[in-house]
Amino acid sequence: MTSPSRSLEAMRAGAPLVQCITNYVAMNFAANVLLAAGAAPAMVHDAEESGEFAAVAGALTVNIGTLSPRWVAGMVEAIDGATGAGKPWVLDPVACFATGLRRETTTKLMQLRPTIVRGNASEILAIAGESSSGQGVDAGDSVQAAEAAARKVAQEAGSVVAVTGAVDFVTDGARGVWISGGSPLMPRVTATGCALTCLVGAYAAVVEDPLDATVGALAHFAVAGEMAGDGVSGPGSFSAAFLDALMAVGPESLGAARVRAA
Amino acid sequence: MTSPSRSLEAMRAGAPLVQCITNYVAMNFAANVLLAAGAAPAMVHDAEESGEFAAVAGALTVNIGTLSPRWVAGMVEAIDGATGAGKPWVLDPVACFATGLRRETTTKLMQLRPTIVRGNASEILAIAGESSSGQGVDAGDSVQAAEAAARKVAQEAGSVVAVTGAVDFVTDGARGVWISGGSPLMPRVTATGCALTCLVGAYAAVVEDPLDATVGALAHFAVAGEMAGDGVSGPGSFSAAFLDALMAVGPESLGAARVRAA
Amino acid sequence: MTSPSRSLEAMRAGAPLVQCITNYVAMNFAANVLLAAGAAPAMVHDAEESGEFAAVAGALTVNIGTLSPRWVAGMVEAIDGATGAGKPWVLDPVACFATGLRRETTTKLMQLRPTIVRGNASEILAIAGESSSGQGVDAGDSVQAAEAAARKVAQEAGSVVAVTGAVDFVTDGARGVWISGGSPLMPRVTATGCALTCLVGAYAAVVEDPLDATVGALAHFAVAGEMAGDGVSGPGSFSAAFLDALMAVGPESLGAARVRAA
Repeated sequence: MTSPSRSLEAMRAGAPLVQCITNYVAMNFAANVLLAAGAAPAMVHDAEESGEFAAVAGALTVNIGTLSPRWVAGMVEAIDGATGAGKPWVLDPVACFATGLRRETTTKLMQLRPTIVRGNASEILAIAGESSSGQGVDAGDSVQAAEAAARKVAQEAGSVVAVTGAVDFVTDGARGVWISGGSPLMPRVTATGCALTCLVGAYAAVVEDPLDATVGALAHFAVAGEMAGDGVSGPGSFSAAFLDALMAVGPESLGAARVRAA
Repeated sequence: MTSPSRSLEAMRAGAPLVQCITNYVAMNFAANVLLAAGAAPAMVHDAEESGEFAAVAGALTVNIGTLSPRWVAGMVEAIDGATGAGKPWVLDPVACFATGLRRETTTKLMQLRPTIVRGNASEILAIAGESSSGQGVDAGDSVQAAEAAARKVAQEAGSVVAVTGAVDFVTDGARGVWISGGSPLMPRVTATGCALTCLVGAYAAVVEDPLDATVGALAHFAVAGEMAGDGVSGPGSFSAAFLDALMAVGPESLGAARVRAA
Repeated sequence: MTSPSRSLEAMRAGAPLVQCITNYVAMNFAANVLLAAGAAPAMVHDAEESGEFAAVAGALTVNIGTLSPRWVAGMVEAIDGATGAGKPWVLDPVACFATGLRRETTTKLMQLRPTIVRGNASEILAIAGESSSGQGVDAGDSVQAAEAAARKVAQEAGSVVAVTGAVDFVTDGARGVWISGGSPLMPRVTATGCALTCLVGAYAAVVEDPLDATVGALAHFAVAGEMAGDGVSGPGSFSAAFLDALMAVGPESLGAARVRAA
């Protein structure tokens, strides 16, 4: 297994170009998260160019947060481009339980076999076909309650699956890893999960094993979140401190990340 | 009348899901404002799903800031969904005087009878059919100059109308309330008005009287703005402090809000 | 030549309305940059209204960062509107080398003769028809390496051309100006270049000579970046401090801007 510290070193050394098809809410914050962490974001979404660009980028991330039919076409083109070029891609199935369009789109995208899926507990439960208590875009279920669903989705789809929340769980169907850290202020800042998906893409571009890549990104996020939470007075000051911390975190800090095998 | 303090308690207790169809500029900030204040935002706009989602959300807000025909269709679907489900909806007629598309769209949306309209003085004057001196997206008129127009629009449309600016005025056509507070830095931060519209939606989801709901949201915003303005050195630091303050404001702080009947 | 200090005074006095057609990542930050600096942004992009609005605004800026065919149509309408009304417009050819859609769009927009073009070195080299080593949206070339290309593009297109990076170069084909300042944290904050393009638009709306206008905006940005970089701990705190500094910078600070003729 590649340790989170090694993965961070590889990510910083590679400064990978990550094509992010993400939602309107998350775009600015996700780009800032990648730049602070050490990667290079590019938001390229339209079907006219998304597939062409995917062949050039180191990884692709696809997020269905603010969905429309035209964007779904761009996602599919980009996924085809990434897959054809042998590049990893990460799916973020935002509120996939909430509407018919989200359910259909998620089913279609899962059939394209994402390298990695990152969602909250309610989203992963929904993909596994189990009942979830998600409301809007927020999870109504604990990460622990979604562990079995995550393993099932990973096995059926051949994807690494990450369930993130107060603690995070990552599995490839066989192995399982828990990561803890972060800050209670993170759910008070919009698009933290969406930005994390993009960071998973950055790690996946340079770390060969998608499980290791995902654990690296989640550990980086968790440690930075914990650092940033100290001494701030609310979500606005947290957000700025979090970007600072993503840049400040070094391999030595990640050595202390609380990562343990399931 | 429900006091702003009571309304805040109700909003925090309910943590309502608010569907926000807002502009590209405002989306991230508006979502962060709702999360900091204690509500749950969901940006769902496309006609393929906006109506379905509106039946689930506690309230809907519609903002025409970055307008296009496809989005207008999504707005109308969402409004139909909200109205059919008995949910309140709030209109933010950004720069409704500036182009033909904005004038037509505002006329169409006003005919769908918003529960609440929140705009700046120039926008409310324009809806009332009076001449306004707005330029671009900014008001060129004082809130005081729009009081009569606000009462007229409220009576004709059956909506609560809020005119916000250096001071705020809210009316249901009969009653009128003035709210003061905020910070001179607020007009230097983009999308504060758009975010306020979303917060009005959060209050409207849980407070039955739309006038009380609007006053609660405006008082919450004004008190947080005043708190945040102390000791910051410009619009960037204000913006972070403002999100912190929206979370920190409690019912006791709102007790001191400067709210008075007209 | 109008000095940067004079240009700043003129921009603050005029508080020009700038129509910005920019990308989804940049919209919020660019609007905040303009408000902090003293101008009035309006993001109006769709072909249904972009041309009508351009006749009212003081200047137009067009950025191809998150491109789609519908938006290209809106750009062309807006440019026609601005040109017809005798208003200046600024092109930001983001990653114009990266895909066929970007190459075609940039060729089409250059034929419409932008008043000013602002890009990074790789973008300007690509427009000049020379090989660039850009990757994604970032420059892989130094500003110095693009000086000759900038002069060539300026002469052929009849535009002022600004190449920005660690130092900035501005030329109208005959004259050339170098501007230094800023902070090494600026490339770690997304959309700083895009926001700068919008600020160039604000100066172009009020300063008659497009070269002087561009130099004024770049000096304002460089001095604010340098002020903000002092004592911050990363890109998150830099971003807030930068907005504060854009507002705090006065004509006296710009007198010390490091601007020299080439």
